[in-house]
Amino acid sequence: VTVQSYDPRSGATVAEIEETDPQEFTSILAQAEAATPVLAATSPTERRRWLYAIAEGLERNRDELVALADRETALGAERLQGEIDRTTKSQLRFYGDVAEEGSYLGVSIEEPTEGKPSLVRVNRPVGPVAVFGASNFPFAFSVLGSDTASAIAAGCPVVAKAHPAHVGVSQLQHAIAAEALAEAGAPTGTFAMVNGFQNGIDLVKAQAIQAVAFTGSQTGGLALWRIANERPIPIPVYAEMGTVNPVVVTREGAASMDEVAAGFVGSFTLGSGQFCTKPGLLLAPAGCGAPAAICAALQAMAPEPVMLTKAISAGVVAGVFEFVGSGAAVLAQTTPGDDGFAAPAIIYVAEIGALTQGSRLLEECFGAVAVVCEYRDDEELAVALAALQPSLAASIITGGPTDSQAAGVVDVLSSRVGRLVIDGWPTGVTCSWAQHHGGPWPSTTIPQATSVGAHALDRFIRPMTFQNTPDSWLPPAGQAANPWGIPRRVNGDLRTASRSE
Amino acid sequence: VTVQSYDPRSGATVAEIEETDPQEFTSILAQAEAATPVLAATSPTERRRWLYAIAEGLERNRDELVALADRETALGAERLQGEIDRTTKSQLRFYGDVAEEGSYLGVSIEEPTEGKPSLVRVNRPVGPVAVFGASNFPFAFSVLGSDTASAIAAGCPVVAKAHPAHVGVSQLQHAIAAEALAEAGAPTGTFAMVNGFQNGIDLVKAQAIQAVAFTGSQTGGLALWRIANERPIPIPVYAEMGTVNPVVVTREGAASMDEVAAGFVGSFTLGSGQFCTKPGLLLAPAGCGAPAAICAALQAMAPEPVMLTKAISAGVVAGVFEFVGSGAAVLAQTTPGDDGFAAPAIIYVAEIGALTQGSRLLEECFGAVAVVCEYRDDEELAVALAALQPSLAASIITGGPTDSQAAGVVDVLSSRVGRLVIDGWPTGVTCSWAQHHGGPWPSTTIPQATSVGAHALDRFIRPMTFQNTPDSWLPPAGQAANPWGIPRRVNGDLRTASRSE
Repeated sequence: VTVQSYDPRSGATVAEIEETDPQEFTSILAQAEAATPVLAATSPTERRRWLYAIAEGLERNRDELVALADRETALGAERLQGEIDRTTKSQLRFYGDVAEEGSYLGVSIEEPTEGKPSLVRVNRPVGPVAVFGASNFPFAFSVLGSDTASAIAAGCPVVAKAHPAHVGVSQLQHAIAAEALAEAGAPTGTFAMVNGFQNGIDLVKAQAIQAVAFTGSQTGGLALWRIANERPIPIPVYAEMGTVNPVVVTREGAASMDEVAAGFVGSFTLGSGQFCTKPGLLLAPAGCGAPAAICAALQAMAPEPVMLTKAISAGVVAGVFEFVGSGAAVLAQTTPGDDGFAAPAIIYVAEIGALTQGSRLLEECFGAVAVVCEYRDDEELAVALAALQPSLAASIITGGPTDSQAAGVVDVLSSRVGRLVIDGWPTGVTCSWAQHHGGPWPSTTIPQATSVGAHALDRFIRPMTFQNTPDSWLPPAGQAANPWGIPRRVNGDLRTASRSE
Repeated sequence: VTVQSYDPRSGATVAEIEETDPQEFTSILAQAEAATPVLAATSPTERRRWLYAIAEGLERNRDELVALADRETALGAERLQGEIDRTTKSQLRFYGDVAEEGSYLGVSIEEPTEGKPSLVRVNRPVGPVAVFGASNFPFAFSVLGSDTASAIAAGCPVVAKAHPAHVGVSQLQHAIAAEALAEAGAPTGTFAMVNGFQNGIDLVKAQAIQAVAFTGSQTGGLALWRIANERPIPIPVYAEMGTVNPVVVTREGAASMDEVAAGFVGSFTLGSGQFCTKPGLLLAPAGCGAPAAICAALQAMAPEPVMLTKAISAGVVAGVFEFVGSGAAVLAQTTPGDDGFAAPAIIYVAEIGALTQGSRLLEECFGAVAVVCEYRDDEELAVALAALQPSLAASIITGGPTDSQAAGVVDVLSSRVGRLVIDGWPTGVTCSWAQHHGGPWPSTTIPQATSVGAHALDRFIRPMTFQNTPDSWLPPAGQAANPWGIPRRVNGDLRTASRSE
């Protein structure tokens, strides 16, 4: 049995890869399990070296990777070159640096006092992590993407599932990583890949797997979450899923409506609208000409979306029936090409009263699809905001820091999203220390967790406290001499790495 | 309909309290929901003041509380006085101090650089928390215990469920807290209590509730976990449950077997064996006389267990059939009294080969019950350790830092417990910065979380990132001037509070 990927521009087969057979599947899990204590015993600096080696491997094969990924995704060479940069610099190398900095180890030391024992608290890696990448990021959220990089950085072996939509470039990345890790001296079992739908399900059920990281649709993420909860020993599923990511334009923000419209259309059609942070709903004050301006911006920009898969392309068309059935009307749309997985870009318009809890209009339609509604007053806006499904992100387009309407909207949206953007668009998620990419259910299964940024490592550790334990039996992170030079809390007092203890 | 509590020493009714009626239940949840944004907008210093006020209220009513709790639990005045100290000093006041210190807010700030926006990451309270206390701690893990204190410290309203085994002292504590909070100026809805079994279930199902904290049996905790996962919007259940908490005595550690035996019997019979950290299994080297020494220690100590409830007392007796049916034999037991909920203390002995995965001998029997097994060599010990159910805690009794056998056991047990104690017993859990009380499933539902120690607050927050947001719209914790003077990360650099920014 094989898995095939297709060229979205033509529909032609690009790659055809054998599914992992049962014997190999078993062997991969056994190796991941065997590698667990070995990885746990390595230093973050050592794992940082492995991640840098993978990054270098990707960069050495950059042109081949981009060419193959472009054939499988039609995302274009420029975007894919940028994605390789993100993967190698902002993820693989950055997470290695975060591991070495050592705050993720959460070390807290208490010296014994009368009646109280010595305690040393240290975060430890959980063990093998299953990683499910997304169709829309063949590098940054695929087999060597953010989840894999942060899990290895935290000291966990990874078994990734090849993504069927880009199974060829999944396989190429696996081969590059395998070679880089072997050369860097990482133990066998540090990273492996399985291929095939059922193998993905079996991965979540496998006793060796201790956590699952997933990026994709609500349907896919919640299915894995349910499987993981039915295990004899349930494990966490960190699923980062698609949402509608609303944009609110305040009355002051609507002053430059043409500019707002151009920005909105640029954001929701970027990458053919195939981002989990795509703004799918815009709420603008009535009487400012938002629908006409957005309609004009779409016609001027005239995007030609090509979708990653046939199913995604079909979903855009099916969305028309669903959205119109929920009270929206098509305001403007582009005409798709005839070849491959082409789809229209579509803007719907709806009465704001149609935005009731559970409405299809408040859920994601993956693709260059968005809904525009006008609010007549604060009351109408408040009712609509209260009905919103929680989202990964939201934007507010304001008149600046003195915009009193905006300040109120900030308060309301803060309780419903994981990231709030002022005077910008939700697409584009920097991978850095201060990032959080994860909102309340159903945008993520575990809203405390982020799939982007330094805290991505926190998903793959669990704390442990050693009581009255001789120094030589402690993990190095907790030993008195602080051999890794990391920030630690000592007797309640937080000490940065540079300060001597 | 009422809930009644009973005197464990006689079986007589102590208190009889009306179940919360549906109208009051609805009103309690509405008030908790209304208080959510108000609490989120308060400073940690303000909430610290509320927690100190509750602590003072408990201390003012100390004697009445202890007398009533002793009638409902039979835990004795000395133990209960100590538990009030723990609750007021090490929990209510300590968590207030932890909140004020501000690390739990996890603030990370990134100033804009070319091509990258400003980002401010701040942890925010999740909203109303349902708290289910434990029968064995009428103060420290009951309606004003560790979960309630840490949730309020983190800025979340709490709705606690009265514990049926000490419903009288639950009600008294609720009244004390309500008065203290009102006097301190905390908003209505900050803390409430419901009474009745079905009200507990309805609490977990209530839309307003955003997280559940539970301390008790695996049966109870997992039942709530399942209910929470079946909600339209699932919420986390932080359940801290009972486990067997194994003790390994190394060959060198067995040198002073009489002392080890006395320590072990003291620990497993403490509080009539009614601790989630009770050591329920001791693995000792063969030929060192462990069974005889432990038998003698039990006879010398002659504990007279009185259990918290009739059901717990009956569970100890039922355990005999289960344990003997699983290959153990009764090595020694005390004779229980005739009155109330008296029960025997029991030591079983079993062949180490009986410790197979899933055996009843590897699960908790709540009460003064423990199993002793002897291992002939490292191989036999390793097989037994591999079969263990993960536990909250484990102990190793060693010959000191040069004990090479102990170092290996540290490695093995580290992967299976949340806290490892060297040359001490697992009972006794300090509430401090470096504590972790939570192990792998099934000892807790979420092993990353702790129900004791500074990090208990982390269960009740979720991170959020503000992008390109004017300073005045940010939560105070993230504002440029650092008005709360808390530790923060700025452009990736961790800065303690004392250091100027």
